[in-house]
Amino acid sequence: MNLTVVKVGGAIVEDADSLRSLLDKFANIPGHKVLVHGGGRSATRIAEQLGLPQQMVAGRRVTDAQTLRVVTMVYAGLVNKNIVAQLQARGINSLGLSGADMNVIQSHRRPPKNVRMDDGDTQLVDYGFVGDIDHVNADLLADLIAKGVVPVVSPIGHDAHGTLLNTNADTIAAEVAKALASAFDVTLVFCFEKRGVLRDAGDDDSVIPLITQDLFPALVAEGVVSGGMLPKLENAFSAIHDGVHEVIITQAEAIDNPNAGTRLRL
Amino acid sequence: MNLTVVKVGGAIVEDADSLRSLLDKFANIPGHKVLVHGGGRSATRIAEQLGLPQQMVAGRRVTDAQTLRVVTMVYAGLVNKNIVAQLQARGINSLGLSGADMNVIQSHRRPPKNVRMDDGDTQLVDYGFVGDIDHVNADLLADLIAKGVVPVVSPIGHDAHGTLLNTNADTIAAEVAKALASAFDVTLVFCFEKRGVLRDAGDDDSVIPLITQDLFPALVAEGVVSGGMLPKLENAFSAIHDGVHEVIITQAEAIDNPNAGTRLRL
Repeated sequence: MNLTVVKVGGAIVEDADSLRSLLDKFANIPGHKVLVHGGGRSATRIAEQLGLPQQMVAGRRVTDAQTLRVVTMVYAGLVNKNIVAQLQARGINSLGLSGADMNVIQSHRRPPKNVRMDDGDTQLVDYGFVGDIDHVNADLLADLIAKGVVPVVSPIGHDAHGTLLNTNADTIAAEVAKALASAFDVTLVFCFEKRGVLRDAGDDDSVIPLITQDLFPALVAEGVVSGGMLPKLENAFSAIHDGVHEVIITQAEAIDNPNAGTRLRL
Repeated sequence: MNLTVVKVGGAIVEDADSLRSLLDKFANIPGHKVLVHGGGRSATRIAEQLGLPQQMVAGRRVTDAQTLRVVTMVYAGLVNKNIVAQLQARGINSLGLSGADMNVIQSHRRPPKNVRMDDGDTQLVDYGFVGDIDHVNADLLADLIAKGVVPVVSPIGHDAHGTLLNTNADTIAAEVAKALASAFDVTLVFCFEKRGVLRDAGDDDSVIPLITQDLFPALVAEGVVSGGMLPKLENAFSAIHDGVHEVIITQAEAIDNPNAGTRLRL
């Protein structure tokens, strides 16, 4: 059985019009599916309205106890339940989840570690209540998916000792895809601001349609894949090594178009 | 198979110590179980911090679009996921739900209606995004419960057209209990500030241990059951007529004590 895991970032799910358009397209994807979402912009806005200035280090949120309450509310409550309600309106029997629900995503709190800053220096950073994933418990999830339920996963994990943990949504999508790969033939779709991986960064029409594992090192050597795209593709190939059939990097506008974006395969 | 549905109000789940104590006791209840919770005090506090003054009419919240966002965040996100994480820490495989999740609770927006005010006058009130329940879809829920999953239900419903609706938690508990009564032998427990239904309002030791349907009219005639307790018991007997085995009215501190509180039976 085919299963498509789609990861979509905050900018799309937090704007009412782009969310509607995304969910229309998500509804068009045939077969079983899972949606993993972000919600960072709303979290930042609401945190600041509540008088909690937000600190980002190397692109990641420092999550103190008060900020954890905000991201829990916004990701697992506001954003997640609005997506679920709108999918139900499209006849999709969705189920919103955090990692604590059915113990789907078990994590541990990230210890302080050296992080490379934008200026190239490294710095010891304690991100607070941020999780690194240990395990995805896929059995009950796979049962529900096989019954036609569409999980909608928010980027909140837990440590199995009662503490929720803010968790990167890209990582959740990859780990969920891998964990479900033993039960389904999984395609993992990352929504991206560009139309795919571009051969020429300045030319939006230069999408590379297919990158195989053999082609990948050459693209890195040529400098075609660099910067933030490099860890993204490394993670994608890691998921493929762990059983995911295919990873697609595409725009949110094209998630239901089987010919759009860049496909990664063995 | 026995199933216990416990409804607990906001005051208990919003205080860290009383929540811990409640969950310890909830964990002790044998057999299958469901927890339905409130969260109104946190919602009011956070709404006011966000600059949204809250309006209560006859004890119920007027829910405009901005307030709907807040109750969705607080009930289905903050309160729900913290309960779920803490139950997981106690080895209980819980699953947090709003009514939109798996279309568990389908509602319609309550039309403006005449409401009896505290001063005895009636007034036409539009409660905004508030739901009256049409239907509980119990099949997938019953499957999960039979597999050992413990649903934790937040008081947010949906209209199946994409709109979430603020919904009374007592009503949710009663409707969930009734819907599951065809699959389980259901006991419905309402947590109450007193030790049970009291024969003498001034004497906390005067708990009436059992009220049968035959005894109920006499207690009303004697004035023992009056005020806010009257609709509570009417709803309880209505649930019993619809298949719920037993309703218990007790304190949160005693939900795991089979001899505490007041039992209602046919």
